[in-house]
Amino acid sequence: MSPFQDTAQRLGQTARQASRELATAPGGQRDQALLTLARLLREKSANILAANQGDQEAARAAGLSPALLDRLALNPTRLEAMAKAVETVAALPDPLGRIRTGWRRPNGLQLSQVTIPLGVILMIYESRPNVTSDAASLCLKAGNACILRGGREARESNRVIGRCLADSLVETGLSPAAVQVVENPDRELVNQLLGQDKYIDLVIPRGGKGLIQAVDSISRIPVLRHLDGICSVYVDLSADLAMAEAIVLNAKISRPAACNSIETLLLHKDIADKFLAQVLPGLSRAGVEIRGDPAVLAAANQLGLTLTPASATDWDTEFGSLILAVGVVDCLEAAISHINRHGSGHTDAIVTSSRQAGTLFQQGVDSSSVMVNASPRLADGFEYGLGAEIGISTNRLHARGPVGLEGLTTYKWLVDGEGQLRV
Amino acid sequence: MSPFQDTAQRLGQTARQASRELATAPGGQRDQALLTLARLLREKSANILAANQGDQEAARAAGLSPALLDRLALNPTRLEAMAKAVETVAALPDPLGRIRTGWRRPNGLQLSQVTIPLGVILMIYESRPNVTSDAASLCLKAGNACILRGGREARESNRVIGRCLADSLVETGLSPAAVQVVENPDRELVNQLLGQDKYIDLVIPRGGKGLIQAVDSISRIPVLRHLDGICSVYVDLSADLAMAEAIVLNAKISRPAACNSIETLLLHKDIADKFLAQVLPGLSRAGVEIRGDPAVLAAANQLGLTLTPASATDWDTEFGSLILAVGVVDCLEAAISHINRHGSGHTDAIVTSSRQAGTLFQQGVDSSSVMVNASPRLADGFEYGLGAEIGISTNRLHARGPVGLEGLTTYKWLVDGEGQLRV
Repeated sequence: MSPFQDTAQRLGQTARQASRELATAPGGQRDQALLTLARLLREKSANILAANQGDQEAARAAGLSPALLDRLALNPTRLEAMAKAVETVAALPDPLGRIRTGWRRPNGLQLSQVTIPLGVILMIYESRPNVTSDAASLCLKAGNACILRGGREARESNRVIGRCLADSLVETGLSPAAVQVVENPDRELVNQLLGQDKYIDLVIPRGGKGLIQAVDSISRIPVLRHLDGICSVYVDLSADLAMAEAIVLNAKISRPAACNSIETLLLHKDIADKFLAQVLPGLSRAGVEIRGDPAVLAAANQLGLTLTPASATDWDTEFGSLILAVGVVDCLEAAISHINRHGSGHTDAIVTSSRQAGTLFQQGVDSSSVMVNASPRLADGFEYGLGAEIGISTNRLHARGPVGLEGLTTYKWLVDGEGQLRV
Repeated sequence: MSPFQDTAQRLGQTARQASRELATAPGGQRDQALLTLARLLREKSANILAANQGDQEAARAAGLSPALLDRLALNPTRLEAMAKAVETVAALPDPLGRIRTGWRRPNGLQLSQVTIPLGVILMIYESRPNVTSDAASLCLKAGNACILRGGREARESNRVIGRCLADSLVETGLSPAAVQVVENPDRELVNQLLGQDKYIDLVIPRGGKGLIQAVDSISRIPVLRHLDGICSVYVDLSADLAMAEAIVLNAKISRPAACNSIETLLLHKDIADKFLAQVLPGLSRAGVEIRGDPAVLAAANQLGLTLTPASATDWDTEFGSLILAVGVVDCLEAAISHINRHGSGHTDAIVTSSRQAGTLFQQGVDSSSVMVNASPRLADGFEYGLGAEIGISTNRLHARGPVGLEGLTTYKWLVDGEGQLRV
């Protein structure tokens, strides 16, 4: 038996207990806890920044990369943004107690499906300490207890932020066990937590693909996640090519590392040459490396450009950088099957002026968001108007695409009768 | 590597491929396949009954129990009921293409969440051959491909029913791979199928607790299931005791083996003696064995009855038979915490005349159905008006309580723009 099994079980049981209290706490009380947290983050800013200095020094001494050091670092501006973010979550509408649907049966039985908290959520993330207050506030807003396991580099920062969280819960009359910050950095404890499916209802890993894959492969608990963001734009025969150019540039260049940036561009054969002549200069100016299929290479040749040939694996790769695989397809159906075969089910878009083509594409592409004449970069909780974003899910169950607070809720059936029996 | 890994993967891949075709098949075509199936079940009844005879003889020779033999047996009446059930499913409204919600954003982007098939469903069940046509028709109605793995006792029956399924798909112009009946009875193949989370989206085990637990412990794929049905009725201080008596008798006696029958009766201390005097005779006449806590034993003693003391484990046991654990609680809150601690999150009911008590109970009890003044036996897809019942789920994610066709769907986001970019 793992030495951490007991600890993991105790964390789970305590969280489950606290989740029962939270589930019946009024929305006003949950919001009050968040406003108190925002206040304490400001009041305790000196302590938080000092702890964060310690984390940064240890990280520098350990020789961590500048990118990681930047993710770890807090300063007064970032701390104020954390407090503001908590207040923004507090101001959102209460996701609980909403009647999703309901009806009366012929025997008079009244049925309603009402939203309730999911229960206990385990968040596993990396070095950014702001995720601690961010994740806690989203969980609390939706009435969930949570267990937060951040990166070991941010240990001291998370400890102090965790204390602010506990204090704000106590001050508001809620159980401090509603948010538990895991201080022991041992990986084996995480593994044991991922086995507590009796007490933990959902795991949300936030971080790189390695983290998400590791969590996903071990967990006995459902995982809200996307592993890959292989998104694409297909430019249809009838596309407005100026619109297509703007969408492609936006979708590739505006933030190449984001999961909703595109990795693949597919072109209908009858507009391929013309569109390549139009779009290649802009992509090239932005430093995008094109990897083309034979038809694209040939067309580029005509334009006096020599491009890299796309390898077989390029179509299945999330480059996350200024690389774009470009291919020519014979028809809409070929584009749909390419996307269903090689895409990651995240977000794909068609540019077309044809109603029918748009509808067929939206029906045929099996992704969580399917767009017509819009940039896949818009696949985002805030852009969709969800008010918050827990993450983008490529799961098929529970929540798909950009997930807002609703993704942290479930429902129960309320049944009201006057003595009805099963006949 | 398991010799069955290839087979399992091939089944999964083929099903995924078929599911893509099915997802865009019009509702009328899916319904037509079901009506054709119903016709073929009737046309081929001689073949089905002959195959079933073979299964029955083999089962008798193997010394299987009479209960199992009965579950296995088909006859003209049961076969006609199977065909009728398929027609009933065909007549239900199409669960696909429904806009769950949607809105327009300030930048003009139109968002809609539309229902789509879940994808590929693996059904694992026991000896009843009618589950083969039943499960297939529910999956097809919701546009899902399915892999059906029935009990080895029903192998010949399932083979012939599977042929009817394949023929009806082909006759309707759909891929016969949309329904694959697994003929190899090796358990290792099931284990390998449960690892195909890349190709299979949901597993639904139908059968005894042993089957469900085995599936749940092995599966890498989400499982729609309930392990236990430990349901209870709490009779509140202000209950209409005649109504409470009728509900308790209905909930315990009408079908003791059903998962929505009650195992536990909790009584508010101030009505316990009076209600016991009222309800015990009826329970006793029906042959119910009462297992009481000390307060219940004492009250029964006053009535001249000697009851069995409830053991500590009785409160956590699904008896599935005419046994009822009865306890006295001090207050509503004690009833709620008893249910949250010992219940299985399936269905629980309060009998009360107090609006406030009903609301507190519905908020506090963490079960998939929480009833006021109604028999827990009503927790059922047909009683809830869902038109079908895939099963009753005590999962927290995806679908809870009685699950109709909606539980076999998920959604995607359709996004319609006129060239919107991420700013």
